[in-house]
Amino acid sequence: MLPPIHLDPQSSEPLYRQLYRNLRDLIDSGQFDKGARLPATRELAGQLGLNRTTISAAYELLESEGLITGHVGRGSFVAGSSNSSSAFEWRDILKEPPSSAPATSPAVRISFATSRPSELLFPLEDFRATCEEVIHGADAHTILQLGSPSGYAPLRRYLIDKSRTEGVAEEADDIVITSGVQQAFDLLQRTLAADGETVLIEDPVYSGLRNVFQRGGARMVGLPVGPHGLELGALERAMAKERPRLLVVTSNFQNPTGATLPLASRKAILAMAQRFGVIIIENDIYGPLCYEGDPIATIKQLDDSGHTVLLRSFSKLAFPGLRVGWAIAPRALIEKLTEAKQISDLHTDQLSQAVLLRFAESGRLENHRTLMLTAGRERLRATLAACEKYLPEGAAYTRPRGGMNLWIRLPQPLDAGELLARAERVGVTYLPGRYFAVTNMEASALRISFAGLAPDLIKTGLSVLGRIFQEGLERTRSQSRLEVPAMV
Amino acid sequence: MLPPIHLDPQSSEPLYRQLYRNLRDLIDSGQFDKGARLPATRELAGQLGLNRTTISAAYELLESEGLITGHVGRGSFVAGSSNSSSAFEWRDILKEPPSSAPATSPAVRISFATSRPSELLFPLEDFRATCEEVIHGADAHTILQLGSPSGYAPLRRYLIDKSRTEGVAEEADDIVITSGVQQAFDLLQRTLAADGETVLIEDPVYSGLRNVFQRGGARMVGLPVGPHGLELGALERAMAKERPRLLVVTSNFQNPTGATLPLASRKAILAMAQRFGVIIIENDIYGPLCYEGDPIATIKQLDDSGHTVLLRSFSKLAFPGLRVGWAIAPRALIEKLTEAKQISDLHTDQLSQAVLLRFAESGRLENHRTLMLTAGRERLRATLAACEKYLPEGAAYTRPRGGMNLWIRLPQPLDAGELLARAERVGVTYLPGRYFAVTNMEASALRISFAGLAPDLIKTGLSVLGRIFQEGLERTRSQSRLEVPAMV
Repeated sequence: MLPPIHLDPQSSEPLYRQLYRNLRDLIDSGQFDKGARLPATRELAGQLGLNRTTISAAYELLESEGLITGHVGRGSFVAGSSNSSSAFEWRDILKEPPSSAPATSPAVRISFATSRPSELLFPLEDFRATCEEVIHGADAHTILQLGSPSGYAPLRRYLIDKSRTEGVAEEADDIVITSGVQQAFDLLQRTLAADGETVLIEDPVYSGLRNVFQRGGARMVGLPVGPHGLELGALERAMAKERPRLLVVTSNFQNPTGATLPLASRKAILAMAQRFGVIIIENDIYGPLCYEGDPIATIKQLDDSGHTVLLRSFSKLAFPGLRVGWAIAPRALIEKLTEAKQISDLHTDQLSQAVLLRFAESGRLENHRTLMLTAGRERLRATLAACEKYLPEGAAYTRPRGGMNLWIRLPQPLDAGELLARAERVGVTYLPGRYFAVTNMEASALRISFAGLAPDLIKTGLSVLGRIFQEGLERTRSQSRLEVPAMV
Repeated sequence: MLPPIHLDPQSSEPLYRQLYRNLRDLIDSGQFDKGARLPATRELAGQLGLNRTTISAAYELLESEGLITGHVGRGSFVAGSSNSSSAFEWRDILKEPPSSAPATSPAVRISFATSRPSELLFPLEDFRATCEEVIHGADAHTILQLGSPSGYAPLRRYLIDKSRTEGVAEEADDIVITSGVQQAFDLLQRTLAADGETVLIEDPVYSGLRNVFQRGGARMVGLPVGPHGLELGALERAMAKERPRLLVVTSNFQNPTGATLPLASRKAILAMAQRFGVIIIENDIYGPLCYEGDPIATIKQLDDSGHTVLLRSFSKLAFPGLRVGWAIAPRALIEKLTEAKQISDLHTDQLSQAVLLRFAESGRLENHRTLMLTAGRERLRATLAACEKYLPEGAAYTRPRGGMNLWIRLPQPLDAGELLARAERVGVTYLPGRYFAVTNMEASALRISFAGLAPDLIKTGLSVLGRIFQEGLERTRSQSRLEVPAMV
């Protein structure tokens, strides 16, 4: 039985923060023994009449401070009190200048480095129910037997029907299930750009995408990404001059910049692709995570000329450990991709295909998406507020409307790669801009992946980064004063 | 409650055959209504004191005759009686000559075309128990989160420990988990044979293997496979002359021939590879399915020089719909394969990796292997006996000691590809030799995949094929009499 918890809905302090304080005090005062099990998020949400994201955020905060361990799914367990010496003391760390940090780095406690959903938000109970239904279902044998390179037929039917309803698949289109969007890129490279073809690609871009074409020997031309995505002038010049075979573009919440293409730009890109005979690969992996404003039609949806391949996945909503993505394109191309798929790995894992189908069909995916939108919106707002508050003067950052990533450009001459070691010494990490460069190396840039962190951790983490960047600026200023050229 | 079943252990009629007759009679006499559920194989095996393979074989026979439908796991259901007009009447089909077969082909009822385990032998109850344990286990969150390109760490540890104990992994070796052995071939092609390198390969060989290297632009040299596997003389000449980078070899129960390399040949191949600096890719996917005699050490096991890459998988024992295989090789190569893996699809599905790990760790995999060995032995013996009895004079066939496949060479001038259409018209199918050719097209050959069929179906199917081949021979003889050259 849980001791009483005192929450004030009228308070300016967010509810998850209040809950976190209540639980921390209970742990500190010994009312929870070490090893005691906290209630499951769903259970506590029911008891307190709160949203599950609120409970998750509070638990996440407790976990980041080492007060609880384990996972929401099987229960979280009390690990110690914030009075005990083993607890990670943010207050101490934050007071100490980096130079006096302990010789052995503390483990990274706040990671902005990975563009993935939080484990704590995984709907584990729904996942379990879904698995039970699949393994006890009438098709269990079929699922476990060798399958088709096109994908598990019921999942293909579900996705193609849904895509037709949404208008992203035409009558002449077909679908192939891939082992995540990463494999879709790989199959497209093998099928369309195996002989040194020219590929236009956003710069910066998700490195896994760049690496596929780089390794495949394609000639890559990077195009700048502005606040509204791919810059159209540069794109048009490149189409005319470079004679590309492919353009790879992320219309929604691009990784790493978070930028979204306005509708007019989508139409303009499609018109250019049609004029120059270029195939568009539209990576829409973040599309379902739109936190602010209305979703915009995909290029695929606008295209009735068959120039566009649309790539999607379940991985950014839930369970990225289950590798299932898909490509929608004109039938002739899907046939070629399916041949390449068969040679690559016969077919995508059927257990995961069947589980994700059931998860979607049962409405659980859409329920979970609602939760992810609420959590993502809070996290995005916390990120923007913390950037505003903590980043040094002269820093610029993007303002995504969805997805998982935001892009920061530090004032010159700061190098985000060099500053990373200092950040990690105090337990915060991120990916420097150079990881995402095609040809344009932006040493001052970094990516902040915010979706996997509770708002308070985002705030703490960005306040740490802000201080490190500020100190870096001060150091370079004092160095430049010392480095006045000799007057000879 | 099941009506009484009368079995005579002393009878010369096999028990599964007796059980089949009993059940057929119960269905025909109306003691089982249409739609009634038969007991699960495990349950009936317990009640009758029989092996589960016996029950499965009887059910498989009933299913092939259309008397029951559904799957052992959720129960099999009575579909009709053998008196009803919708039942597939083997006796009628077998009496009719092919020319009088109905214009619309009957569905193929006996397929020798796929080298995969029978769905009816899948241990569904054990699979369900395993899934339950995994999804309710402490690591559920970790499994569902993005994973490592090397593979799920606990599975990697389990496999590397097991491989070290068995002596197939050296201290300097490492492991990468792949999406089935097909992907291991693909990663090896990309890593070791991406620039037109020469690859020595068995001829005939599994087409999926050949296609990987063909598509990758490798220069392939096919080597003949005799009754004892790869012919050593041809191999030595090719190594000296062709300067290959790789040799791909299947030591145990090669697909399609079923041939096994004797220990002396394995040693000789290894010595040659060492002398000529050739990397051996040892495909051991069928290794665990040894029905007759003792298993022989793999080439990898004999090799302390780091020339060999060993490929294995769970797929031939159970659940090929779950795509998990692995490669064991010196650490430096595994690192390169892991890089290629990450670019291909990030990592292998973690749900399946975790389920298969639990299935193996719990001892269920080994229990199931025992069942598969019993069933496979029966099926192999039935195949050899039926070949002996039904194939026309002049036909030759291999005598595998394990695996799933046997290779038949028909007497000249029969073409197994041409005869296939006739076989399919009476409900039997197989793959003609040309599917497996690298350069040497053996028109007279065909592959019989026997592991997925109950002994009685094997017998029936081969008796049908024997008659079709015999008729083919008679036709060619009468044609050649008509085609005497004009005496001019």
